[in-house]
Amino acid sequence: MIGRITTDRAQPDTTVLGPGDDSAIVAAADGRVVACTDVLVEGVHFRLDWSTPEQIGRKAAAANLADVAAMGAVPTSLLVGLACPSATPAAALEQIADGLWAEASAVGAGLVGGDLTSGPVLVVSVTALGSLQGREPVLRSGARPGDRVAVCGRLGWSAAGLAVLGRGFRSPAALVNAHRLPEPPYAEGPAAALAGATAMIDVSDGLLADLGHVARASTVTVRLRSRAFTVAPRLAEIGSALGLDPLRWILTGGEDHALVATFPAETGPPGGWTEVGVVEAPDDGGPAVTVDGRPYDGDAGWSHFAG
Amino acid sequence: MIGRITTDRAQPDTTVLGPGDDSAIVAAADGRVVACTDVLVEGVHFRLDWSTPEQIGRKAAAANLADVAAMGAVPTSLLVGLACPSATPAAALEQIADGLWAEASAVGAGLVGGDLTSGPVLVVSVTALGSLQGREPVLRSGARPGDRVAVCGRLGWSAAGLAVLGRGFRSPAALVNAHRLPEPPYAEGPAAALAGATAMIDVSDGLLADLGHVARASTVTVRLRSRAFTVAPRLAEIGSALGLDPLRWILTGGEDHALVATFPAETGPPGGWTEVGVVEAPDDGGPAVTVDGRPYDGDAGWSHFAG
Repeated sequence: MIGRITTDRAQPDTTVLGPGDDSAIVAAADGRVVACTDVLVEGVHFRLDWSTPEQIGRKAAAANLADVAAMGAVPTSLLVGLACPSATPAAALEQIADGLWAEASAVGAGLVGGDLTSGPVLVVSVTALGSLQGREPVLRSGARPGDRVAVCGRLGWSAAGLAVLGRGFRSPAALVNAHRLPEPPYAEGPAAALAGATAMIDVSDGLLADLGHVARASTVTVRLRSRAFTVAPRLAEIGSALGLDPLRWILTGGEDHALVATFPAETGPPGGWTEVGVVEAPDDGGPAVTVDGRPYDGDAGWSHFAG
Repeated sequence: MIGRITTDRAQPDTTVLGPGDDSAIVAAADGRVVACTDVLVEGVHFRLDWSTPEQIGRKAAAANLADVAAMGAVPTSLLVGLACPSATPAAALEQIADGLWAEASAVGAGLVGGDLTSGPVLVVSVTALGSLQGREPVLRSGARPGDRVAVCGRLGWSAAGLAVLGRGFRSPAALVNAHRLPEPPYAEGPAAALAGATAMIDVSDGLLADLGHVARASTVTVRLRSRAFTVAPRLAEIGSALGLDPLRWILTGGEDHALVATFPAETGPPGGWTEVGVVEAPDDGGPAVTVDGRPYDGDAGWSHFAG
C-alpha cells in the first residue's frame, strides 16, 4: 500500500533514493539537514466529515513544511507514518497520499518514505526534512530589543473557519477552506532569512502563544499594535455575524501557519510582510507579549475596530 | 511534555540543533541523509500488558535504527510522533522516552524532535536519520548470481517469544524478552558495507519474506540451506515443548531485525556472519527464495533437525 502511495510519482532532484528500500536517501547539500515531526489524529486535529482525505494529507504536510520554512530552510522531503482502520477504503489512502504529494510538490519536495499500519482511528504522522542552503538557521532565540516584528500569511482564518464549522455552517467557503487547508507562505521563510530576520516561528498555536515562545527564548518583550493588523472583510463580516471580535481570531487562532519574524530596525522586513510591533527589553515581569501596551485579555471587542 | 521527553539529555555531536525550535538540525556530513519511518500501534504491534513502556520505546527505535543499519549507514538521530490517551500517566510517557533514548544512545544517536498529542490508543511513530559516512548505500537490488548469502543477529527468537506469550506463559525469559526487545546487530550494517556487501535488508517480516524483496529487486533466486542455520538450544527446547518446528520461526519469524546480506563469492561475509546460502540466476519461474532446493512449505517438521 505504501508502494501505491509513493510509486509512479516524480521525485525532485534532492531525492537521492526514493521509497522501496530499507530507508530513503535525501540530499543535504551543506552537510546539515533540518527535520521536524507533527502528528494529526482523527477526532483531535481533523474530522472526516469536515475535511476530505486529500485536505487532511495537505494539512499534515503543511504543518511540517511550515516548520521547515520557519527555520529559513527549504523543504526537501516528507516521510509519512499512517495508521488507519482496516476498513479504510484504498481510495481514501490514495487521496491522503495525493494531498501529501500536492503540498510537498508545491514547494519542490518529495514523499520519500512511509509506513502504513492498522489502528482504531486515522493517524497521520509526518516528518519533513529541509535544506538551509548554507544559511544559518533563524531561531526563536534571536530577537533583540529594537527589532521590528512582522507577519506574513493569513492569521485568524482557520479559527474563523472552525467557528463557522462548529456552528453547523459550511460557508463562507473561504474561511471554512482556510481551516481545512492552511496556505503557509513557505517561500517567505528563506526570504526572511536572506533579509536578515533575527528570529522566526510559524503560527501554529496562535500569534500570541507563538510570539510567547520567541519572547521567552530571546528574553525580550514583544509589543504589538492592534491597529497594525489588517482585518480582512470576510473576517470582519463573519465576526459581526457571529458576534465575535475578529481580533481574537487574529491574535489567538492557530493552524494558519503564517510566519512571524523579527528584523533589525535598520532594514525592517522585506516586501510582503506586515509590521505589527516592536521588540523591547523585558520589564521586571520578565519576557512577555503585549497588545497596545497590555497583556491581551480578549475583551477589546468588535468596537475596537470601529473607530 | 515533549520538552520533558527531550530536555536534560546529552545529545551526540551530530545534533547541530536539538529540540525546542520549529525544527531540529542534524549533521549530514557527506551531503546525504538516510531516512526511514516506522509506526507501532497499541494492540497491533505491542500490548501494554506484555511490554513495559520503556520496551515499547526501545522497540520502536530499534525497528528504525535497523533500517538505517541495513543501508550500511550509521544512525544519527530519531524524531518521534506520539499519540496517546489523555489518561496516560506522565511516567509512562517518560519511560517511552527513556526507551527511545536508551536504544538511540546505544548507537550514538540522539532524540532531536517530536510531537505529542492525544489519541484513542498509544501510537508511536519514529523517524530515524543516518549517515552513510561517504560510503555507497547497500540496496536490496545489488545481489548477483554467485554471491554468498549470510545472516547476522537473532532469527526466530521474537516469533518464539510471541508464541510463548500467546499461550499465556511468561518464560523462557530469553525468548519473551527477545519479543519485547529486539537486539539488531546495528554495527554489522556498516561493517557489511565495508566488507563489500552487494545487497542487504533487515529481517522485519521474516527471513524468507525479506529475502523475497531482495530476490525481486535483484532479479535473482536465493537458495538457502536449512542445515546452515544454527538452532539455539532455547529455540529447540521451546519448539519441542510447543510441538512446533523452530525452523519455521527462523525462516518466517519477524521483528528480530537481524541483518541478511549478500557478499561476493571471492570475499564472503566478514566475521560474525553465518553463511546460509547462495545467489543464483532466476529460473523460468522468476526470482524466488528456496530452502533446500524447494519453496518452503513449513512442513519439514521438527525431525528435520533430528538427523
